[in-house]
Amino acid sequence: MDESRRRIPQATIRRLPIYLRDLTEAVAQGVAVTSSSEVAARTGISSEQIRKDLAYFGAFGTRGVGYDARQLAGEIRRILGISRGVGVALVGAGHLGFALARYSRQESADVAVTMVFDRDPRIVGSRIGDLTVLPVAQMEMLVRRAGVKMAVIAVPGDAAAGVLDILARAGVEAVLNFSPVALSAPGVHVQHIDLTMELQSLAFFTSLRDGVDPLASAEGRA
Amino acid sequence: MDESRRRIPQATIRRLPIYLRDLTEAVAQGVAVTSSSEVAARTGISSEQIRKDLAYFGAFGTRGVGYDARQLAGEIRRILGISRGVGVALVGAGHLGFALARYSRQESADVAVTMVFDRDPRIVGSRIGDLTVLPVAQMEMLVRRAGVKMAVIAVPGDAAAGVLDILARAGVEAVLNFSPVALSAPGVHVQHIDLTMELQSLAFFTSLRDGVDPLASAEGRA
Repeated sequence: MDESRRRIPQATIRRLPIYLRDLTEAVAQGVAVTSSSEVAARTGISSEQIRKDLAYFGAFGTRGVGYDARQLAGEIRRILGISRGVGVALVGAGHLGFALARYSRQESADVAVTMVFDRDPRIVGSRIGDLTVLPVAQMEMLVRRAGVKMAVIAVPGDAAAGVLDILARAGVEAVLNFSPVALSAPGVHVQHIDLTMELQSLAFFTSLRDGVDPLASAEGRA
Repeated sequence: MDESRRRIPQATIRRLPIYLRDLTEAVAQGVAVTSSSEVAARTGISSEQIRKDLAYFGAFGTRGVGYDARQLAGEIRRILGISRGVGVALVGAGHLGFALARYSRQESADVAVTMVFDRDPRIVGSRIGDLTVLPVAQMEMLVRRAGVKMAVIAVPGDAAAGVLDILARAGVEAVLNFSPVALSAPGVHVQHIDLTMELQSLAFFTSLRDGVDPLASAEGRA
């Protein structure tokens, strides 16, 4: 990764897909030109933030006129590197992996799961939509040969570090980690989705911190 | 939510569980006192950021000495509102919901799924670990009665808005949305986990944007 890319806040990178989806939907509805305040109204992100985020990548739009929606969507795809369709290797075809792979194939996205791996011989060879589950033993070779640079890890915590090592050797550069453990490998950008931490931070936005204890009266607990 | 809480950046709230996990692990390893630079070294978050994040909530630690690890962990639990265990209603017991519920029950977390709902009569009554899947038709009553304020939505996109409406009526205040559609309801904080957007932003951190097209040679595509 070049140095100029490092200086861009990750929060900015994470908002680009939100702008992309908004612009794509706007184009689909016949919008040709849109403004940062219109994008703001539709996405809930402030127009100042939108202008600041886009300014990292150049000058877009015309002051007082707005953005060419289709062109800006194309620019964001180019910035993200997804202009031509990106393949993703998913590792772990349990309940979570199955759901993620199927979801990814249903969405007609620029980035989609194109390979699924599992170590369980009872699962290898089974189908998830139009994909066949492949053996982890062949993962390094197959991922490298396909030139796939992104992966999703959906394996149990005890297997996750070993999976990341194989992916790193195969040339994968960015990983979405759904396993419950923190992972890192040299040269690999790892984004962790941790359900426990998501729920912990979500609690802040409730009145729970004001003293309610739902477990004391949880009727629904079996 | 009171006004002072609104001024705290969401990114700060999302880092608190990272500090909490680090401090909890440090305490488990016998650490009594730790510093922001030690937390920084273990979490990869800068010590300046850590001090700035904690400063929103008061003065913690002693300059030149550090934080009492156990006490600071307790303070973060109190700030988040999870000191006494928080119950979560999960809606949608398909592959994703099953995986999320089981994962949540395996982790001995402060925040855990305590109720699971589905609309499919073939799934209602089945077990996920120690929980029994309950009918969505009874969700509003059961969630309200239990005083549960948080929920996870893991249903298909076409059902998600209706589920959020029921949850809002039942008194839920914060929702983690795994469905592929954006959701909002008055008085409910919604955090969206969107696989497509996660993968799109992840692509930025690879060399894909420099011109490789993995789909052109994806051997593993079934």
